[in-house]
Amino acid sequence: MASYLVTGSSRGLGLALVTRLVALPKAEVGTIIATARQDNSPGLKELVNASAGRIELVTMDVTNEASVKQATTLVEQKLHGKGLDYLINNAGVMDWSPTGLEGMDNLNEVFNVNVTASHLVTRAFLPLLRRAEKKAVINISTTLGSIAMAEVYQHMKSPAYKISKAAMNMLTVQYAQQYANDGFTFLAISPGWLRTELGSARADLPVDVGAEKVVDIVQKAGPEQNGKFFDILVPGWEKLSRARYDGEEIPW
Amino acid sequence: MASYLVTGSSRGLGLALVTRLVALPKAEVGTIIATARQDNSPGLKELVNASAGRIELVTMDVTNEASVKQATTLVEQKLHGKGLDYLINNAGVMDWSPTGLEGMDNLNEVFNVNVTASHLVTRAFLPLLRRAEKKAVINISTTLGSIAMAEVYQHMKSPAYKISKAAMNMLTVQYAQQYANDGFTFLAISPGWLRTELGSARADLPVDVGAEKVVDIVQKAGPEQNGKFFDILVPGWEKLSRARYDGEEIPW
Repeated sequence: MASYLVTGSSRGLGLALVTRLVALPKAEVGTIIATARQDNSPGLKELVNASAGRIELVTMDVTNEASVKQATTLVEQKLHGKGLDYLINNAGVMDWSPTGLEGMDNLNEVFNVNVTASHLVTRAFLPLLRRAEKKAVINISTTLGSIAMAEVYQHMKSPAYKISKAAMNMLTVQYAQQYANDGFTFLAISPGWLRTELGSARADLPVDVGAEKVVDIVQKAGPEQNGKFFDILVPGWEKLSRARYDGEEIPW
Repeated sequence: MASYLVTGSSRGLGLALVTRLVALPKAEVGTIIATARQDNSPGLKELVNASAGRIELVTMDVTNEASVKQATTLVEQKLHGKGLDYLINNAGVMDWSPTGLEGMDNLNEVFNVNVTASHLVTRAFLPLLRRAEKKAVINISTTLGSIAMAEVYQHMKSPAYKISKAAMNMLTVQYAQQYANDGFTFLAISPGWLRTELGSARADLPVDVGAEKVVDIVQKAGPEQNGKFFDILVPGWEKLSRARYDGEEIPW
């Protein structure tokens, strides 16, 4: 009965991850902490109300260190002395710049949300993770952050997103190295191009498919996957050249 | 007679790059613009005074967009209607965190100097680069920014530097893609571990060797190298496993 924390769970992939987790049997998934910057998502509230106490809603602004610290205290109380098994750093933003780099004026802001905030949250929750069995941190990354695959995504005009996610991948590897000997598992996962507000309606996959496939990887992950970057596995998509979804490691 | 601009040239590798460039024949290297945040480097001033007008000192704070714009106007005047052949984004900072990620509290600041500032400078100088023949932008990166090589540098406690340089590599590739059809060349170069204030006295190579080898790559680079990440070539070092210095492409 593992515990999970998902950041940015008011909508999009975060909400879908919480939805997927609560649909799994209690023997697999125990307490689910859903964090959001504001306590005003109807979708999340509905889910919490129907969860018979399995989902705990905690307000946390991942970019604000004081808010993150306050949230760790609350989460600690809600776990009743147990540790946190899985931390999923999902909160993130994407830029859209029709003129590409010419119009990229929000690089620091995008980096702060996607990278620095993931660092603040991870660092703050390390003591609670250490107390649990799994000790796993999942950073929601993207193949758009793969420098080696950049040619494939040349047409996607989100330079700050790509730059920040390459940086997030290096952050993941740095954590993986530093805490490998303590039994931690740090993963970067690309959830696929999903039909969310961020991914648009033209995306490849429904968000619930992406969430299900991410949770599949997360539940199978152990120290032998530490520091790796995985694509989701979606049968039927493995052979497509653009979006691979083959469950394999993604080149940096 | 190509023109060069080197940022962060008051000391370290920047000063060594200007020193190397001015030592080359005028037929190869024409006007050298040396930029620095402040106009108070004795080493740079001496070099400028002895250069018979070949080196032009321009004050530019790369993190300040107004200062960058002011500098482009000045540089345009100093080039007398000609374009800028080579822009070398060298200004940068490194963190040192004995506790690794635990003590990493300057990620946004390091990112701003190493990545966002390189973007601001590159974007501002694009019109002047476009007017020149070479149209080359060199981003001084490092093998420590290679996620694929992270294991080699595990002992180096500079997480923010590593994360920012991985991001700078993605920035380089984004620029390479966007301006490939306009004849531009964007490169990331790892100058080696050099004996500077940043690199420490324990480093592998004297700074003048690093500067010479960087200029070697820069002078040979053309559109076929666009978007690549190179190590310097230092005879005798190619076979060492840690620091390769083999002149080859570095994996991302």
